[in-house]
Amino acid sequence: MRYAGVVEYEGTRYCGWQLQPNGVSVQQKLEEALEALYGSPVRVTGSGRTDAGVHARGQVFHFDPPRPHPPEEVLGALNARLPDDIAVQRVIRVSGDFHARYHAVRKEYTYLVLAGGPRPALLRNFCRHVPWELDDAAMREAAAVMQGEHDFRPFTTEAAARENCRRNMELVAVEREGRLVRFRFRASGFLYNLVRALSWSLVEAGRGRTDAAAVARVLETGRRDSSCGVAPAKGLTLEWVEYEDYPELRRTGP
Amino acid sequence: MRYAGVVEYEGTRYCGWQLQPNGVSVQQKLEEALEALYGSPVRVTGSGRTDAGVHARGQVFHFDPPRPHPPEEVLGALNARLPDDIAVQRVIRVSGDFHARYHAVRKEYTYLVLAGGPRPALLRNFCRHVPWELDDAAMREAAAVMQGEHDFRPFTTEAAARENCRRNMELVAVEREGRLVRFRFRASGFLYNLVRALSWSLVEAGRGRTDAAAVARVLETGRRDSSCGVAPAKGLTLEWVEYEDYPELRRTGP
Repeated sequence: MRYAGVVEYEGTRYCGWQLQPNGVSVQQKLEEALEALYGSPVRVTGSGRTDAGVHARGQVFHFDPPRPHPPEEVLGALNARLPDDIAVQRVIRVSGDFHARYHAVRKEYTYLVLAGGPRPALLRNFCRHVPWELDDAAMREAAAVMQGEHDFRPFTTEAAARENCRRNMELVAVEREGRLVRFRFRASGFLYNLVRALSWSLVEAGRGRTDAAAVARVLETGRRDSSCGVAPAKGLTLEWVEYEDYPELRRTGP
Repeated sequence: MRYAGVVEYEGTRYCGWQLQPNGVSVQQKLEEALEALYGSPVRVTGSGRTDAGVHARGQVFHFDPPRPHPPEEVLGALNARLPDDIAVQRVIRVSGDFHARYHAVRKEYTYLVLAGGPRPALLRNFCRHVPWELDDAAMREAAAVMQGEHDFRPFTTEAAARENCRRNMELVAVEREGRLVRFRFRASGFLYNLVRALSWSLVEAGRGRTDAAAVARVLETGRRDSSCGVAPAKGLTLEWVEYEDYPELRRTGP
């Protein structure tokens, strides 16, 4: 018997999704809540890791409950036991071979940047604040270059460990509301730090330190240039994960 | 010499805007930052109080600096000294008779409700979560009744202390994005707990416990009914304050 869950969390206080010897992880908090509920250890498997400080609106996980409680009851019991910065949004029963990581077909991440002006108070844990004005047209040109299938080796910090860094970015979008700029990234697969690396370069494009042509050159040659970097974790949110057989696990909107 | 400032804060950790013998206030934090900057005590006057847990995107205050630093420098120096959940957004020089409270001509508050489904993690300090679905049409009918000039005595907890409870609500609006409902209240003057009391009644209307006719009856008779209450502080945000001679103090958008 297998259940899948969708969980929202603020990553600020955690060492990330994944269990760590030092530091408290979101996975640990979920496993503790499940153990308190069932009276025996329950292992949780996520759709993938998120780093320390990274948030999720729709992280997906699966677990095998020792006893068959109704999913709605499990959801309520978990939320009663979880800290207030972690909240399960959905629990459903899935087939016994469902796997949160292997069966994920698509994910969307967003990266928030507050551009120009003083630092924020309300969004302090949810965006990267930069003192510069950012040029939307320049960022959109760079985003258009990133979109599509490329070898993203220069935009990951795990390049050495991976043979294949080709990924298909189905969407790289730049949206704006006042000083707040939102990057959206959608793909069937990502690489370690890929979204934060692309977000760094988009900001560099917005402030005129690089441009679409230079980003294209980095992608073509596989060689980083001085505009490459990794944007801070706190601006990043895993929005949703899609599964072919379980469209209800793709959470949309608040 | 007088300066005015616009400040954004998350009210969660504070006992409110106003100095209190027990508890840390936003005003205290601003006065401490000003004293650190100038080396002598500086009194801060706000446009009005906000309660413990209430947030502000555009609270306005004034102070008389002992020395004439450029406003931009004061802004930077204050933000370097303030905690991360308080951030000054603007400092300008104003005329010596400017008064943040007496000269405010209009304010807007918003109240956020997350309707239905499980509790939130990311918005946990910024909205009231209710387990019920809320009917938009019913809330909009009740809002339409609240809008305009009325004696709001039954919707304030300071009625006994005030002779005149007539206020003109220029706007009471209900907006929605998914599960998230936003009430907007705009007026030249408010009363203690007025926005939280009206927000409570709007939610009661949305869940069918009261309706526009009953709200109209409460306003006409001045007698509370069983649908009256005060919604929790954390959903409330002071959005902006307007001054006739200083339109730049009305902050709009992020």
